[in-house]
Amino acid sequence: MKIFLSQQNYHIGNFEANTAKILAAIKEAKQQGGDLIVFSELAVCGYPPRDFLEFEDFIQQCLAAIDMIKAEADTIGVLVGCPSRNPVAEGKDLFNSAYLLYEKEIKGIVNKTLLPTYDIFDEYRYFEPAYEWNILQFKGKRLAVTICEDIWNLGDNPLYRVCPMDMLMKQQPDIMINLSASPFDYVHTDGRKGIVKQNVAKYKLPMIYCNTTGSQTEIVFDGGSLVMDKDQNIVAELPYFKESLQSVTLHDDGSFAEPVIRQMADVPLVQMMPERFDPHLGTAAIYDALLLGIRDYFSKMGFAKAIVASSGGIDSAVVIALACHALGANNVRCLLMPSGFSTGHSVSDAEQLSKNLNTQYDIIHIEDIFQQYLKELKPVFKALPFSVAEENLQSRIRGGLVMALSNKFGSILLNTSNKSELATGYGTLYGDMAGGLGVLGDLYKMQIYALAKYINRDKEIIPINIITKAPSAELRPDQKDSDSLPEYDVLDPILYQYIERRQGPKEIVAMGNEETLVNRILKMVNMNEYKRNQFCPIIRISPKAFGIGRRIPIVGKYLS
Amino acid sequence: MKIFLSQQNYHIGNFEANTAKILAAIKEAKQQGGDLIVFSELAVCGYPPRDFLEFEDFIQQCLAAIDMIKAEADTIGVLVGCPSRNPVAEGKDLFNSAYLLYEKEIKGIVNKTLLPTYDIFDEYRYFEPAYEWNILQFKGKRLAVTICEDIWNLGDNPLYRVCPMDMLMKQQPDIMINLSASPFDYVHTDGRKGIVKQNVAKYKLPMIYCNTTGSQTEIVFDGGSLVMDKDQNIVAELPYFKESLQSVTLHDDGSFAEPVIRQMADVPLVQMMPERFDPHLGTAAIYDALLLGIRDYFSKMGFAKAIVASSGGIDSAVVIALACHALGANNVRCLLMPSGFSTGHSVSDAEQLSKNLNTQYDIIHIEDIFQQYLKELKPVFKALPFSVAEENLQSRIRGGLVMALSNKFGSILLNTSNKSELATGYGTLYGDMAGGLGVLGDLYKMQIYALAKYINRDKEIIPINIITKAPSAELRPDQKDSDSLPEYDVLDPILYQYIERRQGPKEIVAMGNEETLVNRILKMVNMNEYKRNQFCPIIRISPKAFGIGRRIPIVGKYLS
Repeated sequence: MKIFLSQQNYHIGNFEANTAKILAAIKEAKQQGGDLIVFSELAVCGYPPRDFLEFEDFIQQCLAAIDMIKAEADTIGVLVGCPSRNPVAEGKDLFNSAYLLYEKEIKGIVNKTLLPTYDIFDEYRYFEPAYEWNILQFKGKRLAVTICEDIWNLGDNPLYRVCPMDMLMKQQPDIMINLSASPFDYVHTDGRKGIVKQNVAKYKLPMIYCNTTGSQTEIVFDGGSLVMDKDQNIVAELPYFKESLQSVTLHDDGSFAEPVIRQMADVPLVQMMPERFDPHLGTAAIYDALLLGIRDYFSKMGFAKAIVASSGGIDSAVVIALACHALGANNVRCLLMPSGFSTGHSVSDAEQLSKNLNTQYDIIHIEDIFQQYLKELKPVFKALPFSVAEENLQSRIRGGLVMALSNKFGSILLNTSNKSELATGYGTLYGDMAGGLGVLGDLYKMQIYALAKYINRDKEIIPINIITKAPSAELRPDQKDSDSLPEYDVLDPILYQYIERRQGPKEIVAMGNEETLVNRILKMVNMNEYKRNQFCPIIRISPKAFGIGRRIPIVGKYLS
Repeated sequence: MKIFLSQQNYHIGNFEANTAKILAAIKEAKQQGGDLIVFSELAVCGYPPRDFLEFEDFIQQCLAAIDMIKAEADTIGVLVGCPSRNPVAEGKDLFNSAYLLYEKEIKGIVNKTLLPTYDIFDEYRYFEPAYEWNILQFKGKRLAVTICEDIWNLGDNPLYRVCPMDMLMKQQPDIMINLSASPFDYVHTDGRKGIVKQNVAKYKLPMIYCNTTGSQTEIVFDGGSLVMDKDQNIVAELPYFKESLQSVTLHDDGSFAEPVIRQMADVPLVQMMPERFDPHLGTAAIYDALLLGIRDYFSKMGFAKAIVASSGGIDSAVVIALACHALGANNVRCLLMPSGFSTGHSVSDAEQLSKNLNTQYDIIHIEDIFQQYLKELKPVFKALPFSVAEENLQSRIRGGLVMALSNKFGSILLNTSNKSELATGYGTLYGDMAGGLGVLGDLYKMQIYALAKYINRDKEIIPINIITKAPSAELRPDQKDSDSLPEYDVLDPILYQYIERRQGPKEIVAMGNEETLVNRILKMVNMNEYKRNQFCPIIRISPKAFGIGRRIPIVGKYLS
């Protein structure tokens, strides 16, 4: 039996484009003599569709897409993810389902049992969990079809009380097939291989694992679909961060015709989040994820051009380099906005960066606008001393200027705030926190240094002075980040414990950190939730990003 | 048996304040000879605690609060909401529980079965649903204790497959007690009475229904706790939007000593969302909810003072009036920022409003700052025509000025955007969309007119000219809202169908609306998700507010 895995990049709610992609893959697989083609979870509508699922009209469009796909599923079987209606009055009205289409009919529907409802996932918001389990019969094979999370309920403290593969094993399946929409983070990709391996080891069956790729606002799906034989050997591994169509041939004895790519039996299991912050972990994959995150945000929003406020600092330099690599240098425009507090090298470093990358740049000095504001504010501010009001005002003037260019030229402003700043509230709402997409909002400052070095791995794209100088917001004379914040090599590991590993103050102190410092940092994080709440979507590359996956009460009084 | 209902306003994560409140109510109830005192859902930590629940340290603080409360539960029984640990490895690690404390011991724990995971609710994100049901025995009475949603699973299309009261009835309870955290919206309050009545009618038992009050960022809880006898008579009804401690005396035959306040047997059941938009529905209650929403946001964030950009339009006028009523006029400061496009009455109307309310106000003209920006932008913009870039720039200058005052004087900027604008994207990010709290973001323009009239019910607080003139953003000569948007009495009812009632284009057209117009409006709504995503929290007064309760993919391509 020749089985195709179709790893595609869908656009949420774009039924026309998604259906066309699915039909094209079916056509190709038929031409190559395929018996069965497998697509990913909720492929027809894209994942995650979120509250679009609450519109009856949206569900009708999903089902209309299934009708179109069914018409092409004649000699080939198609396994494709799509919502289905719950025929029972009790419970939510929808299931998250896999449809088996064959001979132009719906031959079977399998519903997802384990509905991830944590971090960025909200599936129980929409779907009823399955409570009956049946294999699907297809061309003499007994298929144990599951959807994403259904195969993840392993370990000593499982999240769910039921294990769907245990149930399906009662019906003696020949093969496991899993339709996934499993997102990237810098530990998850290895974790995923570990889970496939654990399932193969437990059930002694081969597994076809089909994932999606592409970025949906903040969530990057990295593909990497797999086929593993029952002896835990990988016989197919689809590429990461791009679309692919590949096939394997399953023999009647459960082995595959394809040669073994990698033996997994001796490879360690699920990689967990490291106990200690490691700024160098996964840099190359993070780079790929950010590129895809930028590229897909622009293409799915229907934009080509980006604008970036170029400060001469490392964060904007890395964003500009990423944007040029993702969108092409001719689509990236930089705006340099020195103030009276800017150092000379800020402008020259930023200019050098644009020259290295060959991007257009303009310089607008903010000093005269700033002075005009101060003049108008004088009757209100009177003789009150220079304070955070004036610091933020400069940042907001820059925000206003760069947004004016965004509006005038139809480009998206890429935001350059990093996770260390967002965590501690070291940024100005409507100023440097403005933008349509937070490129670096899930990278701590130390990770950005690692990424800058990776970008410079072959040649000096980011001027070395940008990497080596001390970080500064340049909003008052001789200002340094370290005036307000601990050094980043102290700050970042503490933030990592609190945000990624959800450790409390006692645990973080017990790891050897100074108690006053820990309490001060945690208080900064919790007090600044109101700022992050107004921040743009952040490309997620870690197991715990700010945004939809981290929901903290703004008025909450905890550790603050 | 004398039973107290303690309807209190908690602060999420503020264990010290919450525990002190709970202990004070217990002390008072003991002094008055109470046998049992009932608190609301998750009272010890406040509702909703959201991702604070993921911190082990937070759970330990919850349990430490239970220990302190237990020590005071000597001669009186205490039923109080708090998370509890799931002793079983399978499933989520926490339950949403009610603790029965008595004789300084935990006498029993009841776990919530039905975990609302829709709209603003995310309970399955944190909690395992109960799958065992037992009554609690207390002083010879058999208590059927449930938590909030547990009693809501009625009707023809119930959301859950199990009904916890059905299970508890097998153990012959004497009385139902429900601990709730049930939020306000303009139909929900009546719906809640209907649910209590339906349960009493179905199970033929009296019910003690204890709700919380107070606002938590965007969610307003309106109290209105109830006691209903088994004949569907209300014998106690606690006030709305404020704290209260009241008692009832339950006789051995299941009747109460208190006189009947209102017979409910003949009152119609659950009030649903009306099929047609009614801008006058619930205006008085909406006013109360907004006042509490403002007041609690300030007190829980630790702020006293507000600043508002006063445009002379109806939205800012209503916000300023509400702010004065909520915080006191001496805590409200207005900033008038006329431009070259402002009409003369904009300033005089805004001045009159501040005089009527006795608030401080300042005037800063933005024209010179605007001209300075244009001068600096000239080398980049060259001879390109005046466009949305210059319109937005004026709005962002105002945003920068009012935020400068906010920063300088330590006040929170109240945002004045309404739901019609937010829906259609008729607003400027970092300009008029700036602010810490969206006071009117859940009211359509037509509802704001109704609210303005309500505010003026006794005397002219809002100058009548502000109510009668045509709405305008005044960002270009002679601009009117109706240049870009349909008239509000056409727009608002269509938005209501799409947003509140989740009707699709076909259904809305079938209600008698013009197809091109409907498609144009729905497209505006869906294309502007990226703007709303960066908006501040909105005080929720409707069954479907923008914000945490409405989750739409930004890159989604649906009806757009």
